[in-house]
Amino acid sequence: MLTDTRDHDTVDHAMQPEDTPELRALYKGFEDESLIPLWTQLGDLMPIHPKSKAVPHVWKWSALLPLAEKAGELVPVGRGGERRAIGLANPGLAPHAYISPTLWAAIQYLGPRETAPEHRHSQNAFRFVVEGEGVWTVVNGDPVRMSRGDLLLTPGWCFHGHHNDTDHPMAWIDGLDIPFSQQMDVGFFEFGSDRVTDYATPNFSRGERLWCHPGLRPLSGLQDTVASPIGAYRWEFTDRALSEQLLLEDEGQPATVAPGHAAIRYVNPTTGGDVMPTIRCEFHRLRAGTETATRNEVGSTVFQVFEGRGAVVLNGERTPLETGDMFVVPSWVPWSLQAETQFDLFRFSDAPIMEALSFMRRKVEGQV
Amino acid sequence: MLTDTRDHDTVDHAMQPEDTPELRALYKGFEDESLIPLWTQLGDLMPIHPKSKAVPHVWKWSALLPLAEKAGELVPVGRGGERRAIGLANPGLAPHAYISPTLWAAIQYLGPRETAPEHRHSQNAFRFVVEGEGVWTVVNGDPVRMSRGDLLLTPGWCFHGHHNDTDHPMAWIDGLDIPFSQQMDVGFFEFGSDRVTDYATPNFSRGERLWCHPGLRPLSGLQDTVASPIGAYRWEFTDRALSEQLLLEDEGQPATVAPGHAAIRYVNPTTGGDVMPTIRCEFHRLRAGTETATRNEVGSTVFQVFEGRGAVVLNGERTPLETGDMFVVPSWVPWSLQAETQFDLFRFSDAPIMEALSFMRRKVEGQV
Amino acid sequence: MLTDTRDHDTVDHAMQPEDTPELRALYKGFEDESLIPLWTQLGDLMPIHPKSKAVPHVWKWSALLPLAEKAGELVPVGRGGERRAIGLANPGLAPHAYISPTLWAAIQYLGPRETAPEHRHSQNAFRFVVEGEGVWTVVNGDPVRMSRGDLLLTPGWCFHGHHNDTDHPMAWIDGLDIPFSQQMDVGFFEFGSDRVTDYATPNFSRGERLWCHPGLRPLSGLQDTVASPIGAYRWEFTDRALSEQLLLEDEGQPATVAPGHAAIRYVNPTTGGDVMPTIRCEFHRLRAGTETATRNEVGSTVFQVFEGRGAVVLNGERTPLETGDMFVVPSWVPWSLQAETQFDLFRFSDAPIMEALSFMRRKVEGQV
Amino acid sequence: MLTDTRDHDTVDHAMQPEDTPELRALYKGFEDESLIPLWTQLGDLMPIHPKSKAVPHVWKWSALLPLAEKAGELVPVGRGGERRAIGLANPGLAPHAYISPTLWAAIQYLGPRETAPEHRHSQNAFRFVVEGEGVWTVVNGDPVRMSRGDLLLTPGWCFHGHHNDTDHPMAWIDGLDIPFSQQMDVGFFEFGSDRVTDYATPNFSRGERLWCHPGLRPLSGLQDTVASPIGAYRWEFTDRALSEQLLLEDEGQPATVAPGHAAIRYVNPTTGGDVMPTIRCEFHRLRAGTETATRNEVGSTVFQVFEGRGAVVLNGERTPLETGDMFVVPSWVPWSLQAETQFDLFRFSDAPIMEALSFMRRKVEGQV
Repeated sequence: MLTDTRDHDTVDHAMQPEDTPELRALYKGFEDESLIPLWTQLGDLMPIHPKSKAVPHVWKWSALLPLAEKAGELVPVGRGGERRAIGLANPGLAPHAYISPTLWAAIQYLGPRETAPEHRHSQNAFRFVVEGEGVWTVVNGDPVRMSRGDLLLTPGWCFHGHHNDTDHPMAWIDGLDIPFSQQMDVGFFEFGSDRVTDYATPNFSRGERLWCHPGLRPLSGLQDTVASPIGAYRWEFTDRALSEQLLLEDEGQPATVAPGHAAIRYVNPTTGGDVMPTIRCEFHRLRAGTETATRNEVGSTVFQVFEGRGAVVLNGERTPLETGDMFVVPSWVPWSLQAETQFDLFRFSDAPIMEALSFMRRKVEGQV
Repeated sequence: MLTDTRDHDTVDHAMQPEDTPELRALYKGFEDESLIPLWTQLGDLMPIHPKSKAVPHVWKWSALLPLAEKAGELVPVGRGGERRAIGLANPGLAPHAYISPTLWAAIQYLGPRETAPEHRHSQNAFRFVVEGEGVWTVVNGDPVRMSRGDLLLTPGWCFHGHHNDTDHPMAWIDGLDIPFSQQMDVGFFEFGSDRVTDYATPNFSRGERLWCHPGLRPLSGLQDTVASPIGAYRWEFTDRALSEQLLLEDEGQPATVAPGHAAIRYVNPTTGGDVMPTIRCEFHRLRAGTETATRNEVGSTVFQVFEGRGAVVLNGERTPLETGDMFVVPSWVPWSLQAETQFDLFRFSDAPIMEALSFMRRKVEGQV
Repeated sequence: MLTDTRDHDTVDHAMQPEDTPELRALYKGFEDESLIPLWTQLGDLMPIHPKSKAVPHVWKWSALLPLAEKAGELVPVGRGGERRAIGLANPGLAPHAYISPTLWAAIQYLGPRETAPEHRHSQNAFRFVVEGEGVWTVVNGDPVRMSRGDLLLTPGWCFHGHHNDTDHPMAWIDGLDIPFSQQMDVGFFEFGSDRVTDYATPNFSRGERLWCHPGLRPLSGLQDTVASPIGAYRWEFTDRALSEQLLLEDEGQPATVAPGHAAIRYVNPTTGGDVMPTIRCEFHRLRAGTETATRNEVGSTVFQVFEGRGAVVLNGERTPLETGDMFVVPSWVPWSLQAETQFDLFRFSDAPIMEALSFMRRKVEGQV
Repeated sequence: MLTDTRDHDTVDHAMQPEDTPELRALYKGFEDESLIPLWTQLGDLMPIHPKSKAVPHVWKWSALLPLAEKAGELVPVGRGGERRAIGLANPGLAPHAYISPTLWAAIQYLGPRETAPEHRHSQNAFRFVVEGEGVWTVVNGDPVRMSRGDLLLTPGWCFHGHHNDTDHPMAWIDGLDIPFSQQMDVGFFEFGSDRVTDYATPNFSRGERLWCHPGLRPLSGLQDTVASPIGAYRWEFTDRALSEQLLLEDEGQPATVAPGHAAIRYVNPTTGGDVMPTIRCEFHRLRAGTETATRNEVGSTVFQVFEGRGAVVLNGERTPLETGDMFVVPSWVPWSLQAETQFDLFRFSDAPIMEALSFMRRKVEGQV
């Protein structure tokens, strides 16, 4: 009965026409003309709320890192394969290496003295470093140091390559909008230098030296850009921003996003908006003992634990988490975080897409 | 050789590692942990330029309409199936009824005195009427007449149903962002009244009466809206706008978008921007004998011939067109139009998505 | 006592220092060095709320028009004086011909077959026609008919001249941002042709033919412009828009800005915003018997009665009004309208300045 | 002759009507009805280019500071007079204490242990500290340290008071949009506490602790604000930003605005735009020996030398400058700077007004 289904999660197909030879002939006619009727597919096409084929999933750093190290032994890096990157493949989206319908996440590994050659593509990319140091990524010719806790940007169509300046390997995570780009057919790609164009290893990139002065904008950079001109968001600043929020909370001042929950968004200083047109990046710090309200959001998001111990509750199921662990929350899947110790997490999501196209909706437990 | 492929259309995988037991063990480890390496997939994930699985395709109105009429006999319309709509399914995107990766297009058919019940959904929708009259679509309680040449909007989350006030059937085309919504997991759906909420049949909807006065905005409507408040863009105005452009061209004035080529975009009067966040609608008129420059564009677009005879050249292949014929141009497929008679075409596309996310690129033959 | 004055309208200077020879020497020192102390001027510089030197004032059309006609006899029009325009000079702003601190309003008069030569200036200008016809204003070479009820735009730096194509004279009102431009030092001026560049007398200007199709934008005009590309807003459309609002109100639909009060804003179709960067134009229609709520607004506004009889209450003082009468409301002066018959009024103001710079405030009787 | 004047700087009144009794009667009629004809005033109202009544002028710190110190002895600070601020009065704008038609600049002086009471006003304000320390300004309850080289903001309608926590006096400069506010009638004023609401003397204000982390935005502050949430822009950051630009220039990288000329704009981190809706603040550093191109700009600007020796050329006239000296450039007056030593200057202007209202124009020597 339709009245039974209207409050439920699926749109029932109560009125499928009777199966007759004439109907079959009609359906054959549809097929011949590359047509498909809506009435046989409506429930899938238009669910009551988003029901992603992607599933919530947790990847353990303790499993990821050894596999990356092994790949370091067996798989060369260079022109063609381009990167020794291993994608986190959402089990619901096989055979694609998509962590969600919009996002790609991978662990990338570069051995001692190795170089990943330069190329550029429409896809927006970033790297986040959960541990280690010694690699420089060269973005449009500007060498950018990669160190623990840093967020490094490679916006669409910027040339970029990486090289390891040390005798020890380094691993980090990559985030891109590859699934969006591939499904929406927007991607261009171009090879660059087989080596990086500048092997210098400065502490600070030119982008940082021009742009990382709080509230100050160079007069030579008054034109707004769609992606941030800051190539590296340093851990030192992120850590201090979060610490100050918790200190202000201790002083009784408004500063945190919820009690015990400090958070910053990485932004494009030319606009105050997201760092790249498709990807939002944030960092969250929970005091020990804090639990966040359960929330549902349109769009997908990925977290990596940076430090501390805690858990995520996804669709009611709790999974313990420790440093380096990653998880994905597909669209409209309810989630919350629990902090056992002080709990630091890097987060990225496709929220800029959802907001730009007016599809964003949020539901927070206990809020109307 | 890599040097051979760099100027070509695909990214070659020149550097796949040697197949060894160790490598197989590594790949098995990836599989166990829901991981997929980038280096085995890069060419597909990151093509040199967009290469859609969608193919260019033409549907003949002379084939579509009889099938819709037959469906009118065999398939009831009502709660559950909701709409007697038959989707144009891109042969490259089977088994989905997607005309492109972002867009849905269908022919919808409503028999004499029938009602399609009310519902609402996040997906943005419009209807365009290539012939006929007699149906009113009721959008958020506002009855909107549907007549030949009219563009009717149903922006996301507006309740809407249709009823045929006459003794003859009527067919039209629907355009929605269903494929985008489904793949990106953004859709919500809610049933409304089993009948339309207002069976009045006014000539002009309340939205038109408030908003369709050129350059005038009601003081009761100063808040900008993400979708246009105009429910119906009447053929009379479209036709006149195009005629004036050609007359101005005759007078030697700048008015057309190219010689012999008049065109308008339907816009949201509160912003001057696109009618809905994901869908652009335009109407093009070519003088007899005009050929447009070949162009490539990121994103997909659909045309329906409204009047006249001509042809489309898709990827170099020419297909004659007449009234009602529809075709899709996937991302970056080169296309041009040729007008045998005065040639009127309705067009819709996903360009607002591509522009909002900074993925738009265009290449026009003869321009740098 | 300070405690007495804090709730009042002025900032008292309770703490002026004692007048001593030393203080006089100090003040002399200030004078010698082009300095003025704040503490002697604060009350004027920073009032409790805006207290304009401009006063509310009403000009009667029955007095204006005969003087303009007389000027038509005695004063030639041509290069140098440029225009036979007579400014409405706010009595509080003498000796300037400013109707308010930002706005200029004048009655302009052109005799049979006369031409006012072309020039251009940074100042934004419009004309509104309360009665008559027969003049064309030529704006950047586009001849624009001027008829009763029309609003005609001449945005900053557009060349413009006028010519009377008939054997009878014509008068209208001009509105400009001359006082703002002069006080803020922003104006440039350039002479053009001594005659208008095109003596054609088309019914519709090219701007109208391209742009006056509701909800439609020419593809040749996708670049937003700071001023409206519509040169003429015709009375026919304004009248119909207002009539429809009142009819919708009769039908119980939301449409008017307040009961019995229909109103439209003239807008730039490329943005939905004001027609020019500094001047807002609106048209208001009150049903017979309607009284508006008393309101205070930052910035100044000018009205001209177009048709009907009623009154304005300015600072509590009621003045009867009839066709052609004009009045100014300086910043924060309370005002309301009373309609004896159906009462049509054209309005312009500097609200875009106040809003762009975040100085706008409004207070409406009976609203919090 | 008109032909003589058209290329010159004034609009001539070649066509004044003959002086007759009838004309006098007409002019008397105008006067009686509060009317003023345009043709007698056009040259003043609409100059060929901006011709400010304000004049370029230089104030010497060596003259300002002793007068401020003397005022410290003779004039109390407190409720009523509110501030011991001495306005730099442009000689062309007497009797007003306006440094330009839009801007106010003053030297403010606070003796040991003194408090300037709290109030708020629509006018936007900032302070810049050329030397000294020891005062805290309390803005909406947030104590903000004032030290050498810092820019401190008090955007419109924020409560603010100051107190000197030391046994030595302190002087600084204030910049406000008082002339704009007064002439445009936009100002509101409200008294606050007679003492500041918080006498704490923290090194960093709460606003800085939340917002001064480069590229990071607190999740508790995602709503954009019309004025910057940063209360203090510290010299340490400004100095470093300028130094880095010159170092990058030494390395052959694009970074400076012109050779030898480093410059930053202070911005609102929520938008990347100006710190307040009406006032732009910048800091410029010239290498010894650098001369800037001569430029004309619409709108007025004020400079204060922070450090070094050099000169300004205003309308062709050169004036030597040293630490603390201030000068004003009225609209369209040509100016350039010459650096004898490394030359540091703080600058503020009304450019946000000119740009928001589309009146900005610039002319730079040697550029087209």
